[in-house]
Amino acid sequence: MTTRITIALDAMGGDRAPEVVVRGANMARERYPQVDFLFVGDQDRIRPLLKRLKKLDKVSRTLHTDSYIPSDMKPSIALRSGRKSSMRLALNEVAAGNAVAAVSAGNTGALMAISKFVLKTLPGIDRPAMAALVPTDRSESVVLDLGANTECNANHLVQFSVMGTAFVKTLLGIKVPTVGLLNIGSEEMKGRDEIRQAAEIINKSDLDFDFKGFVEGNDIMEGAVDVVVADGFTGNVALKALEGTAKFAFGAIKQAFQSSVFAKLGYLVAKPAMRQMRHRLDPRRYNGAVFLGLNGISVKSHGGADPVGYANAIGLAVDMAIHGFIEETHREIAKLQSEKKK
Amino acid sequence: MTTRITIALDAMGGDRAPEVVVRGANMARERYPQVDFLFVGDQDRIRPLLKRLKKLDKVSRTLHTDSYIPSDMKPSIALRSGRKSSMRLALNEVAAGNAVAAVSAGNTGALMAISKFVLKTLPGIDRPAMAALVPTDRSESVVLDLGANTECNANHLVQFSVMGTAFVKTLLGIKVPTVGLLNIGSEEMKGRDEIRQAAEIINKSDLDFDFKGFVEGNDIMEGAVDVVVADGFTGNVALKALEGTAKFAFGAIKQAFQSSVFAKLGYLVAKPAMRQMRHRLDPRRYNGAVFLGLNGISVKSHGGADPVGYANAIGLAVDMAIHGFIEETHREIAKLQSEKKK
Repeated sequence: MTTRITIALDAMGGDRAPEVVVRGANMARERYPQVDFLFVGDQDRIRPLLKRLKKLDKVSRTLHTDSYIPSDMKPSIALRSGRKSSMRLALNEVAAGNAVAAVSAGNTGALMAISKFVLKTLPGIDRPAMAALVPTDRSESVVLDLGANTECNANHLVQFSVMGTAFVKTLLGIKVPTVGLLNIGSEEMKGRDEIRQAAEIINKSDLDFDFKGFVEGNDIMEGAVDVVVADGFTGNVALKALEGTAKFAFGAIKQAFQSSVFAKLGYLVAKPAMRQMRHRLDPRRYNGAVFLGLNGISVKSHGGADPVGYANAIGLAVDMAIHGFIEETHREIAKLQSEKKK
Repeated sequence: MTTRITIALDAMGGDRAPEVVVRGANMARERYPQVDFLFVGDQDRIRPLLKRLKKLDKVSRTLHTDSYIPSDMKPSIALRSGRKSSMRLALNEVAAGNAVAAVSAGNTGALMAISKFVLKTLPGIDRPAMAALVPTDRSESVVLDLGANTECNANHLVQFSVMGTAFVKTLLGIKVPTVGLLNIGSEEMKGRDEIRQAAEIINKSDLDFDFKGFVEGNDIMEGAVDVVVADGFTGNVALKALEGTAKFAFGAIKQAFQSSVFAKLGYLVAKPAMRQMRHRLDPRRYNGAVFLGLNGISVKSHGGADPVGYANAIGLAVDMAIHGFIEETHREIAKLQSEKKK
């Protein structure tokens, strides 16, 4: 018998909470029969939803609280005034060892601040970072940081490389991940000092990844490396540019297919092929940003995610827990620290 | 009779120079009958090509030089040792008033350095910037800086806004362009200090554009604003991320259409629609990056551009010259300077 694990869900976070949270959990349940769910939030709203989903209800508990973090609340205020909030209580359960991970579709900044405060940063890591998987021409890559740190020094970038390595090792099962620092590459635009310094530090170290040097914006979706490392500002802009362009391309295709009767006919015939491509690029499949570098797993679902997307965010949390992401990060960071002492 | 204008072409710059340069000019000639072409480079290679294109030959002259800037030469060295190079001589013709603009598909960094040295920066502008048009969901937008300045302060960003405004006013005929500063938007990630300071300066000024505040990576292709302003590092990463994603999307479509016999059939029927979309996003249509803030027009074609792409880069140079881009930039910058004195 497999050991059962518990995932704590901030049932009140997200645009259509708690409905989407409960329905997302129900989908995740089918994929992960070993998971128990702990719904944290208003039980008067959660329980009626669970009642209708018998199988989910069987593997679920609720932890009641009236309080939740509004989506527009400042992180600093959420940290101070949100002590009884569903988000905070869900993370408390992870810190207490009652759950292996927490998932929230609520306020990103608040989740970042509260996760850091409750779960604590792992020793050897100066700054936790936000990471997400992106589909690439080759398979999938992780990009970090996505906005937790707008300014980074060389050491932060080196630590991100290590955190990202641990992430793809455990989550994608890649034995020796390739890592690249996001930069602008040509001769005359050598990029920023901290990035060149980070490359020097990595080149001198003997870390458990294959350092490919600098990568450029277009290399991300080509899948040039498994781990793309950037400061949070650049990573955020790049990821949103990717998302925007993918959306644009789909829109352009749709428009093209509606441009004439022939085009519409073409659409009908091409539908299965288009559906396949849509699936491959489906943003719901890539829903879920993860806070790396904390002593516990905290996953952020998109606030507007539907149940399919939410189930994927839960899946991310489960996979990280099952495959020992925290332990792997520990090991990799310890290695970096012992490197430093040399 | 329309006044004739001369465009100076660095005939030796680019992967397949001078062939692509000559063929590109021949395409541009059809679109712009008022243009004379000055081919700068090895006449023994250029003249035989022109001989075969009678109509082009009639409106062309050559300026011979044996020297050219290799694509991997450091800008500083190109500046010192490239005094007789085709790139330098082409720009000299612009500075001397013998040509209204120069186009080169050669070494970007060298072109930037030599353009700045030969053409000089316009008064009131601290840093020239590189800009390019991108297709958007709405129409087209300009993004700058694309790599001329990896670090920027608030004043640089304000000047970029003004330069970008002049560009879209003259090139796209937009009377009151909308401008946005590329940032990371949500509450918890307020972005960088210099960007917030730039927004404050703009908000206090009375400049000839409609300031929309901050935009995010996904807003670029949505066409949220006509002018997207960023430091050169961020702008470069964002633009390359866009390009990479567009390429990826096309690849994914292609793959989807080859996945089965039905899909292949679908492709045949859908072909006209797909072609329409391809045309809309054709990178060749958007070939040509422009150095803004200089006292003269210098356009960079992609080094690997084909004649269609090269012709578009020439078109960009012609349009900027015809519509008085330099004069417009002068006016806008003068306004910014008088604002400052208030």
